[in-house]
Amino acid sequence: MTPPNHAIRLYELVLADGKSASPYVWRTRYALAHKGIPCEPVPVGFTGIPGIQAGRFKTVPIIEDGATSMSESWDIAEYLDRAYPDRTPLFATPAENAHARLIEAWLMAEVIRKLAGIYLLDVHDAARPEDRAYFRRTREQRVNGMSLEDFTAGREARLPQVRESLAPLRAHVSRFPFVGGAAPSYADYVAFGPFVWVSSIATIPLLAHDDTLRGWIERCFDLYGGIARDPRMRPLFE
Amino acid sequence: MTPPNHAIRLYELVLADGKSASPYVWRTRYALAHKGIPCEPVPVGFTGIPGIQAGRFKTVPIIEDGATSMSESWDIAEYLDRAYPDRTPLFATPAENAHARLIEAWLMAEVIRKLAGIYLLDVHDAARPEDRAYFRRTREQRVNGMSLEDFTAGREARLPQVRESLAPLRAHVSRFPFVGGAAPSYADYVAFGPFVWVSSIATIPLLAHDDTLRGWIERCFDLYGGIARDPRMRPLFE
Repeated sequence: MTPPNHAIRLYELVLADGKSASPYVWRTRYALAHKGIPCEPVPVGFTGIPGIQAGRFKTVPIIEDGATSMSESWDIAEYLDRAYPDRTPLFATPAENAHARLIEAWLMAEVIRKLAGIYLLDVHDAARPEDRAYFRRTREQRVNGMSLEDFTAGREARLPQVRESLAPLRAHVSRFPFVGGAAPSYADYVAFGPFVWVSSIATIPLLAHDDTLRGWIERCFDLYGGIARDPRMRPLFE
Repeated sequence: MTPPNHAIRLYELVLADGKSASPYVWRTRYALAHKGIPCEPVPVGFTGIPGIQAGRFKTVPIIEDGATSMSESWDIAEYLDRAYPDRTPLFATPAENAHARLIEAWLMAEVIRKLAGIYLLDVHDAARPEDRAYFRRTREQRVNGMSLEDFTAGREARLPQVRESLAPLRAHVSRFPFVGGAAPSYADYVAFGPFVWVSSIATIPLLAHDDTLRGWIERCFDLYGGIARDPRMRPLFE
Protein backbone atom coordinates (compact mmCIF):
# COMPACT_ATOMS: atom_id res chain seq x y z
CA MET A 1 0.00 0.00 0.00
CA THR A 2 1.33 3.44 -0.85
CA PRO A 3 1.54 6.17 1.75
CA PRO A 4 -1.84 7.77 2.33
CA ASN A 5 -2.58 10.98 0.51
CA HIS A 6 -5.22 11.54 3.15
CA ALA A 7 -4.46 12.28 6.79
CA ILE A 8 -5.17 9.71 9.46
CA ARG A 9 -7.66 11.05 11.97
CA LEU A 10 -6.45 10.80 15.56
CA TYR A 11 -8.70 11.43 18.55
CA GLU A 12 -6.68 13.19 21.23
CA LEU A 13 -7.60 13.59 24.88
CA VAL A 14 -7.57 17.30 25.70
CA LEU A 15 -7.49 19.31 28.89
CA ALA A 16 -9.41 22.47 29.74
CA ASP A 17 -6.72 24.54 27.99
CA GLY A 18 -6.97 22.42 24.83
CA LYS A 19 -3.60 20.67 25.20
CA SER A 20 -3.38 17.00 24.26
CA ALA A 21 -2.20 15.21 27.37
CA SER A 22 -2.52 11.41 27.08
CA PRO A 23 0.86 9.65 26.96
CA TYR A 24 -0.74 6.91 24.86
CA VAL A 25 -2.02 9.40 22.31
CA TRP A 26 1.44 10.96 22.13
CA ARG A 27 2.87 7.56 21.23
CA THR A 28 0.53 7.43 18.25
CA ARG A 29 1.17 11.03 17.30
CA TYR A 30 4.91 10.35 17.23
CA ALA A 31 4.39 7.01 15.47
CA LEU A 32 2.55 8.78 12.64
CA ALA A 33 5.25 11.44 12.43
CA HIS A 34 7.97 8.73 12.47
CA LYS A 35 6.35 7.20 9.40
CA GLY A 36 5.71 10.55 7.75
CA ILE A 37 1.95 10.03 7.70
CA PRO A 38 -0.17 13.17 7.94
CA CYS A 39 -2.29 13.41 11.09
CA GLU A 40 -5.61 15.15 11.60
CA PRO A 41 -6.01 15.56 15.36
CA VAL A 42 -9.55 15.64 16.74
CA PRO A 43 -9.88 16.91 20.30
CA VAL A 44 -12.04 14.98 22.71
CA GLY A 45 -12.50 15.09 26.50
CA PHE A 46 -12.63 12.13 28.86
CA THR A 47 -16.42 12.06 28.65
CA GLY A 48 -16.41 12.47 24.88
CA ILE A 49 -14.99 9.02 24.10
CA PRO A 50 -18.36 7.20 24.21
CA GLY A 51 -19.60 9.63 21.58
CA ILE A 52 -17.09 8.40 19.00
CA GLN A 53 -18.46 5.72 16.68
CA ALA A 54 -21.35 5.00 19.04
CA GLY A 55 -19.08 4.07 21.94
CA ARG A 56 -17.14 1.38 20.09
CA PHE A 57 -13.91 2.25 21.91
CA LYS A 58 -13.28 2.79 25.61
CA THR A 59 -9.94 4.62 25.42
CA VAL A 60 -7.84 6.91 23.27
CA PRO A 61 -5.88 6.89 21.05
CA ILE A 62 -8.46 6.11 18.42
CA ILE A 63 -7.55 6.38 14.75
CA GLU A 64 -9.68 6.47 11.64
CA ASP A 65 -7.88 5.63 8.41
CA GLY A 66 -10.41 5.40 5.60
CA ALA A 67 -12.64 2.46 6.50
CA THR A 68 -10.30 1.26 9.27
CA SER A 69 -10.82 2.36 12.86
CA MET A 70 -9.03 1.11 15.93
CA SER A 71 -7.88 1.96 19.43
CA GLU A 72 -4.97 0.73 21.59
CA SER A 73 -1.59 2.31 20.88
CA TRP A 74 0.27 -0.97 20.24
CA ASP A 75 -2.39 -2.24 17.86
CA ILE A 76 -2.23 1.07 16.03
CA ALA A 77 1.57 0.98 15.79
CA GLU A 78 1.53 -2.54 14.36
CA TYR A 79 -1.29 -1.61 11.98
CA LEU A 80 0.68 1.36 10.68
CA ASP A 81 3.68 -0.88 9.90
CA ARG A 82 1.42 -3.41 8.13
CA ALA A 83 -0.61 -0.85 6.22
CA TYR A 84 2.30 1.40 5.22
CA PRO A 85 5.29 -0.93 4.75
CA ASP A 86 7.02 1.55 2.41
CA ARG A 87 7.33 4.06 5.23
CA THR A 88 10.03 3.98 7.92
CA PRO A 89 9.14 1.03 10.12
CA LEU A 90 8.27 1.50 13.76
CA PHE A 91 9.52 -2.06 14.31
CA ALA A 92 12.16 -3.23 11.86
CA THR A 93 12.22 -6.68 13.51
CA PRO A 94 9.94 -8.66 15.84
CA ALA A 95 12.60 -8.45 18.56
CA GLU A 96 12.55 -4.63 18.45
CA ASN A 97 8.82 -4.82 19.13
CA ALA A 98 9.14 -7.43 21.89
CA HIS A 99 11.99 -5.58 23.59
CA ALA A 100 9.98 -2.35 23.47
CA ARG A 101 7.09 -4.16 25.15
CA LEU A 102 9.31 -5.26 28.03
CA ILE A 103 10.59 -1.70 28.36
CA GLU A 104 6.95 -0.59 28.59
CA ALA A 105 6.21 -3.25 31.22
CA TRP A 106 9.12 -1.94 33.30
CA LEU A 107 7.94 1.66 32.94
CA MET A 108 4.39 0.76 33.91
CA ALA A 109 5.45 -1.20 36.98
CA GLU A 110 8.20 1.03 38.33
CA VAL A 111 7.64 4.55 37.02
CA ILE A 112 4.10 5.27 35.85
CA ARG A 113 2.47 4.07 39.07
CA LYS A 114 4.70 6.37 41.05
CA LEU A 115 3.92 9.27 38.70
CA ALA A 116 0.23 8.74 39.32
CA GLY A 117 0.85 9.20 43.04
CA ILE A 118 2.38 12.58 42.31
CA TYR A 119 0.14 13.92 39.56
CA LEU A 120 -3.34 12.38 39.58
CA LEU A 121 -4.95 15.36 41.28
CA ASP A 122 -3.15 17.73 38.88
CA VAL A 123 -4.73 15.87 35.95
CA HIS A 124 -8.14 16.26 37.53
CA ASP A 125 -7.63 19.96 38.07
CA ALA A 126 -6.38 20.47 34.51
CA ALA A 127 -9.22 18.49 32.90
CA ARG A 128 -12.18 20.18 31.23
CA PRO A 129 -14.75 21.07 33.93
CA GLU A 130 -17.28 18.68 32.40
CA ASP A 131 -14.77 15.79 32.61
CA ARG A 132 -13.70 16.21 36.22
CA ALA A 133 -16.42 14.23 37.98
CA TYR A 134 -15.91 11.31 35.60
CA PHE A 135 -12.14 11.45 36.00
CA ARG A 136 -12.38 11.56 39.79
CA ARG A 137 -14.85 8.68 39.99
CA THR A 138 -12.92 6.32 37.68
CA ARG A 139 -9.47 7.11 39.08
CA GLU A 140 -10.56 6.91 42.71
CA GLN A 141 -11.96 3.45 41.92
CA ARG A 142 -8.53 2.42 40.62
CA VAL A 143 -6.81 3.51 43.83
CA ASN A 144 -9.13 1.52 46.07
CA GLY A 145 -11.50 4.36 46.72
CA MET A 146 -8.96 6.83 48.11
CA SER A 147 -9.71 10.43 47.25
CA LEU A 148 -7.32 11.97 44.71
CA GLU A 149 -6.36 14.41 47.47
CA ASP A 150 -5.38 11.64 49.87
CA PHE A 151 -3.69 9.65 47.11
CA THR A 152 -1.38 12.53 46.23
CA ALA A 153 -0.93 13.96 49.75
CA GLY A 154 2.68 14.36 50.82
CA ARG A 155 3.83 13.89 47.25
CA GLU A 156 6.95 16.04 47.60
CA ALA A 157 8.37 13.39 49.92
CA ARG A 158 7.92 10.78 47.18
CA LEU A 159 9.66 12.74 44.41
CA PRO A 160 13.07 11.21 45.23
CA GLN A 161 11.64 7.70 44.70
CA VAL A 162 10.14 8.50 41.34
CA ARG A 163 13.37 10.17 40.25
CA GLU A 164 15.33 7.12 41.39
CA SER A 165 13.00 4.85 39.44
CA LEU A 166 14.19 6.56 36.27
CA ALA A 167 17.82 5.54 36.91
CA PRO A 168 17.86 2.85 34.18
CA LEU A 169 16.62 5.33 31.57
CA ARG A 170 19.15 7.87 32.81
CA ALA A 171 21.98 5.35 32.47
CA HIS A 172 20.79 4.48 28.98
CA VAL A 173 20.54 7.99 27.60
CA SER A 174 23.96 8.80 29.04
CA ARG A 175 25.25 6.25 26.54
CA PHE A 176 22.86 6.63 23.59
CA PRO A 177 21.07 9.62 22.09
CA PHE A 178 17.78 7.70 22.10
CA VAL A 179 16.24 4.62 23.69
CA GLY A 180 16.45 3.10 20.20
CA GLY A 181 20.17 3.96 19.97
CA ALA A 182 21.37 6.49 17.41
CA ALA A 183 17.82 7.07 16.15
CA PRO A 184 14.48 7.17 17.97
CA SER A 185 12.40 4.00 18.11
CA TYR A 186 8.86 3.32 19.24
CA ALA A 187 10.32 2.63 22.70
CA ASP A 188 11.38 6.28 22.80
CA TYR A 189 7.80 7.35 22.22
CA VAL A 190 6.59 4.95 24.92
CA ALA A 191 9.10 6.36 27.41
CA PHE A 192 8.68 9.99 26.35
CA GLY A 193 4.86 10.11 26.45
CA PRO A 194 4.72 10.34 30.26
CA PHE A 195 7.00 13.38 30.22
CA VAL A 196 4.67 15.20 27.83
CA TRP A 197 1.77 14.23 30.07
CA VAL A 198 3.56 15.56 33.16
CA SER A 199 4.52 18.75 31.33
CA SER A 200 0.85 19.27 30.51
CA ILE A 201 -0.49 19.13 34.05
CA ALA A 202 2.31 19.39 36.64
CA THR A 203 1.98 21.90 39.46
CA ILE A 204 5.33 20.72 40.84
CA PRO A 205 8.32 19.97 38.60
CA LEU A 206 9.20 16.29 38.27
CA LEU A 207 12.94 16.50 37.73
CA ALA A 208 15.96 18.33 39.11
CA HIS A 209 17.19 21.09 36.82
CA ASP A 210 20.42 19.23 36.07
CA ASP A 211 18.87 15.79 35.53
CA THR A 212 20.81 13.91 32.85
CA LEU A 213 17.48 12.91 31.30
CA ARG A 214 17.15 16.48 30.11
CA GLY A 215 19.18 16.01 26.92
CA TRP A 216 17.07 13.07 25.80
CA ILE A 217 13.79 14.78 26.76
CA GLU A 218 14.75 17.87 24.74
CA ARG A 219 15.78 15.69 21.78
CA CYS A 220 12.37 14.00 21.87
CA PHE A 221 10.59 17.36 22.08
CA ASP A 222 12.63 18.50 19.06
CA LEU A 223 11.62 15.57 16.86
CA TYR A 224 9.30 16.05 13.88
CA GLY A 225 9.20 19.81 14.02
CA GLY A 226 8.55 19.94 17.76
CA ILE A 227 4.97 18.62 17.60
CA ALA A 228 4.81 18.15 21.38
CA ARG A 229 6.16 21.59 22.26
CA ASP A 230 3.56 24.02 23.50
CA PRO A 231 3.84 27.43 25.14
CA ARG A 232 1.26 26.33 27.70
CA MET A 233 3.58 23.59 28.97
CA ARG A 234 4.39 23.68 32.67
CA PRO A 235 7.93 23.31 34.04
CA LEU A 236 9.16 19.72 34.02
CA PHE A 237 12.48 20.70 35.61
CA GLU A 238 13.06 22.56 38.87
CA MET B 1 34.43 -14.23 7.38
CA THR B 2 33.23 -17.81 7.39
CA PRO B 3 32.18 -19.56 10.57
CA PRO B 4 35.18 -20.72 12.56
CA ASN B 5 36.24 -24.32 12.21
CA HIS B 6 38.01 -23.84 15.50
CA ALA B 7 36.22 -23.41 18.81
CA ILE B 8 36.26 -20.08 20.60
CA ARG B 9 37.87 -20.43 24.01
CA LEU B 10 35.71 -19.09 26.83
CA TYR B 11 37.00 -18.61 30.36
CA GLU B 12 34.24 -19.50 32.79
CA LEU B 13 34.06 -18.68 36.47
CA VAL B 14 33.61 -21.91 38.38
CA LEU B 15 32.55 -22.80 41.91
CA ALA B 16 34.00 -25.43 44.21
CA ASP B 17 31.83 -28.07 42.54
CA GLY B 18 33.04 -27.07 39.06
CA LYS B 19 29.80 -25.46 37.90
CA SER B 20 30.01 -22.31 35.80
CA ALA B 21 28.08 -19.66 37.73
CA SER B 22 28.67 -16.16 36.33
CA PRO B 23 25.54 -14.68 34.70
CA TYR B 24 27.81 -12.69 32.40
CA VAL B 25 29.63 -15.82 31.23
CA TRP B 26 26.28 -17.51 30.59
CA ARG B 27 25.35 -14.64 28.29
CA THR B 28 28.43 -15.37 26.20
CA ARG B 29 27.92 -19.13 26.32
CA TYR B 30 24.38 -18.67 25.00
CA ALA B 31 25.53 -16.07 22.47
CA LEU B 32 28.01 -18.55 21.00
CA ALA B 33 25.35 -21.26 20.90
CA HIS B 34 22.86 -18.82 19.31
CA LYS B 35 25.35 -18.29 16.49
CA GLY B 36 26.27 -21.96 16.27
CA ILE B 37 29.91 -21.29 17.11
CA PRO B 38 31.73 -24.09 18.95
CA CYS B 39 32.86 -23.20 22.46
CA GLU B 40 35.82 -24.52 24.41
CA PRO B 41 35.12 -23.68 28.05
CA VAL B 42 38.13 -23.14 30.31
CA PRO B 43 37.38 -23.18 34.05
CA VAL B 44 38.87 -20.45 36.22
CA GLY B 45 38.23 -19.32 39.79
CA PHE B 46 37.82 -15.75 41.00
CA THR B 47 41.51 -15.59 41.87
CA GLY B 48 42.57 -17.18 38.60
CA ILE B 49 41.57 -14.25 36.38
CA PRO B 50 44.86 -12.32 36.86
CA GLY B 51 46.68 -15.40 35.59
CA ILE B 52 45.03 -15.20 32.17
CA GLN B 53 47.15 -13.35 29.59
CA ALA B 54 49.27 -11.78 32.32
CA GLY B 55 46.31 -10.07 33.97
CA ARG B 56 45.13 -8.21 30.90
CA PHE B 57 41.49 -8.59 31.93
CA LYS B 58 39.80 -7.95 35.26
CA THR B 59 36.57 -9.90 34.74
CA VAL B 60 35.06 -12.87 32.94
CA PRO B 61 33.79 -13.66 30.38
CA ILE B 62 37.06 -13.63 28.46
CA ILE B 63 37.20 -15.12 24.98
CA GLU B 64 40.12 -16.10 22.80
CA ASP B 65 39.36 -16.44 19.11
CA GLY B 66 42.58 -17.00 17.23
CA ALA B 67 44.58 -13.81 17.70
CA THR B 68 41.62 -11.92 19.15
CA SER B 69 41.05 -11.76 22.90
CA MET B 70 38.54 -9.69 24.78
CA SER B 71 36.42 -9.43 27.89
CA GLU B 72 33.07 -7.70 28.63
CA SER B 73 29.97 -9.58 27.54
CA TRP B 74 28.52 -6.78 25.40
CA ASP B 75 31.80 -6.22 23.58
CA ILE B 76 32.01 -9.94 22.94
CA ALA B 77 28.43 -10.12 21.63
CA GLU B 78 29.04 -7.24 19.22
CA TYR B 79 32.37 -8.75 18.15
CA LEU B 80 30.70 -12.07 17.37
CA ASP B 81 28.17 -10.35 15.10
CA ARG B 82 30.93 -8.41 13.34
CA ALA B 83 33.31 -11.36 12.99
CA TYR B 84 30.68 -13.93 11.98
CA PRO B 85 28.06 -12.05 9.98
CA ASP B 86 26.94 -15.21 8.17
CA ARG B 87 25.75 -16.70 11.43
CA THR B 88 22.41 -15.88 13.09
CA PRO B 89 22.78 -12.33 14.38
CA LEU B 90 22.56 -11.56 18.07
CA PHE B 91 21.38 -8.10 17.07
CA ALA B 92 19.60 -7.88 13.74
CA THR B 93 19.25 -4.09 14.11
CA PRO B 94 20.86 -1.36 16.21
CA ALA B 95 17.53 -0.82 18.01
CA GLU B 96 17.43 -4.46 19.15
CA ASN B 97 20.82 -3.89 20.74
CA ALA B 98 19.86 -0.55 22.31
CA HIS B 99 16.56 -1.89 23.65
CA ALA B 100 18.37 -4.89 25.14
CA ARG B 101 20.75 -2.50 26.89
CA LEU B 102 17.87 -0.63 28.52
CA ILE B 103 16.39 -3.96 29.60
CA GLU B 104 19.75 -4.77 31.18
CA ALA B 105 19.84 -1.38 32.92
CA TRP B 106 16.41 -2.08 34.39
CA LEU B 107 17.46 -5.55 35.56
CA MET B 108 20.64 -4.21 37.15
CA ALA B 109 18.85 -1.41 39.00
CA GLU B 110 15.73 -3.22 40.15
CA VAL B 111 16.48 -6.96 40.26
CA ILE B 112 20.18 -7.83 40.43
CA ARG B 113 20.87 -5.60 43.40
CA LYS B 114 18.05 -7.25 45.31
CA LEU B 115 19.33 -10.71 44.34
CA ALA B 116 22.72 -9.83 45.77
CA GLY B 117 21.06 -9.09 49.08
CA ILE B 118 19.63 -12.60 49.09
CA TYR B 119 22.49 -14.65 47.68
CA LEU B 120 25.89 -13.02 48.16
CA LEU B 121 26.81 -15.20 51.12
CA ASP B 122 25.67 -18.31 49.21
CA VAL B 123 28.07 -17.42 46.39
CA HIS B 124 30.88 -17.09 48.91
CA ASP B 125 30.07 -20.46 50.44
CA ALA B 126 29.84 -22.16 47.04
CA ALA B 127 33.12 -20.66 45.75
CA ARG B 128 36.34 -22.64 45.62
CA PRO B 129 37.99 -22.49 49.05
CA GLU B 130 40.98 -20.60 47.62
CA ASP B 131 38.64 -17.92 46.19
CA ARG B 132 36.57 -17.22 49.29
CA ALA B 133 38.78 -14.65 51.01
CA TYR B 134 39.11 -12.67 47.77
CA PHE B 135 35.37 -12.86 47.11
CA ARG B 136 34.54 -11.74 50.65
CA ARG B 137 36.97 -8.84 50.60
CA THR B 138 35.91 -7.44 47.22
CA ARG B 139 32.15 -7.89 47.74
CA GLU B 140 32.18 -6.48 51.27
CA GLN B 141 33.92 -3.40 49.86
CA ARG B 142 31.04 -3.00 47.38
CA VAL B 143 28.43 -3.08 50.14
CA ASN B 144 30.12 -0.37 52.18
CA GLY B 145 32.08 -2.72 54.35
CA MET B 146 29.14 -4.72 55.70
CA SER B 147 29.91 -8.39 56.27
CA LEU B 148 28.28 -10.78 53.81
CA GLU B 149 26.46 -12.26 56.80
CA ASP B 150 24.97 -8.90 57.81
CA PHE B 151 24.22 -8.00 54.20
CA THR B 152 22.12 -11.12 53.67
CA ALA B 153 20.64 -11.37 57.19
CA GLY B 154 16.86 -11.56 57.27
CA ARG B 155 16.79 -12.33 53.59
CA GLU B 156 13.58 -14.38 53.70
CA ALA B 157 11.71 -11.19 54.54
CA ARG B 158 13.04 -9.60 51.35
CA LEU B 159 12.07 -12.42 48.99
CA PRO B 160 8.63 -10.87 48.28
CA GLN B 161 10.34 -7.65 47.09
CA VAL B 162 12.67 -9.42 44.71
CA ARG B 163 9.81 -11.50 43.36
CA GLU B 164 7.75 -8.35 42.87
CA SER B 165 10.65 -6.70 41.03
CA LEU B 166 10.31 -9.41 38.38
CA ALA B 167 6.71 -8.40 37.61
CA PRO B 168 7.55 -6.74 34.27
CA LEU B 169 9.36 -9.87 33.06
CA ARG B 170 6.47 -11.98 34.28
CA ALA B 171 3.97 -9.86 32.36
CA HIS B 172 6.14 -10.07 29.27
CA VAL B 173 6.59 -13.85 29.21
CA SER B 174 2.88 -14.32 29.81
CA ARG B 175 2.49 -12.75 26.39
CA PHE B 176 5.57 -13.94 24.49
CA PRO B 177 7.57 -17.18 24.60
CA PHE B 178 10.81 -15.21 24.93
CA VAL B 179 11.99 -11.71 25.81
CA GLY B 180 12.83 -11.41 22.10
CA GLY B 181 9.30 -12.45 21.11
CA ALA B 182 8.75 -15.74 19.28
CA ALA B 183 12.48 -16.53 19.33
CA PRO B 184 15.15 -15.87 21.95
CA SER B 185 17.25 -12.72 21.65
CA TYR B 186 20.36 -11.56 23.44
CA ALA B 187 18.03 -9.86 25.94
CA ASP B 188 16.80 -13.34 26.91
CA TYR B 189 20.35 -14.36 27.73
CA VAL B 190 20.86 -11.17 29.74
CA ALA B 191 17.69 -11.81 31.73
CA PHE B 192 18.21 -15.57 32.06
CA GLY B 193 21.84 -15.47 33.27
CA PRO B 194 20.90 -14.46 36.82
CA PHE B 195 18.57 -17.46 37.13
CA VAL B 196 21.39 -19.85 36.19
CA TRP B 197 23.58 -18.06 38.72
CA VAL B 198 20.93 -18.40 41.45
CA SER B 199 20.39 -22.07 40.54
CA SER B 200 24.10 -22.64 41.00
CA ILE B 201 24.38 -21.31 44.53
CA ALA B 202 20.97 -20.85 46.17
CA THR B 203 20.37 -22.30 49.61
CA ILE B 204 16.83 -20.92 49.55
CA PRO B 205 14.63 -21.05 46.43
CA LEU B 206 14.06 -17.73 44.71
CA LEU B 207 10.62 -18.27 43.23
CA ALA B 208 7.25 -19.70 44.23
CA HIS B 209 6.58 -23.11 42.67
CA ASP B 210 3.79 -21.75 40.50
CA ASP B 211 5.59 -18.59 39.34
CA THR B 212 4.57 -17.77 35.78
CA LEU B 213 8.25 -17.16 35.00
CA ARG B 214 8.73 -20.91 35.15
CA GLY B 215 7.71 -21.60 31.56
CA TRP B 216 10.18 -19.06 30.19
CA ILE B 217 12.97 -20.23 32.53
CA GLU B 218 12.48 -23.84 31.43
CA ARG B 219 12.43 -22.77 27.79
CA CYS B 220 15.75 -20.98 28.26
CA PHE B 221 17.24 -24.00 30.02
CA ASP B 222 16.08 -26.16 27.09
CA LEU B 223 17.80 -24.05 24.44
CA TYR B 224 20.84 -25.33 22.55
CA GLY B 225 20.72 -28.85 23.91
CA GLY B 226 20.28 -27.74 27.52
CA ILE B 227 23.81 -26.37 27.95
CA ALA B 228 22.93 -24.72 31.27
CA ARG B 229 21.22 -27.75 32.79
CA ASP B 230 23.25 -29.52 35.43
CA PRO B 231 22.35 -32.22 37.93
CA ARG B 232 24.17 -30.23 40.61
CA MET B 233 21.72 -27.36 40.23
CA ARG B 234 19.89 -26.29 43.36
CA PRO B 235 16.13 -25.65 43.50
CA LEU B 236 15.12 -22.35 41.98
CA PHE B 237 11.44 -22.91 42.80
CA GLU B 238 9.90 -23.66 46.18
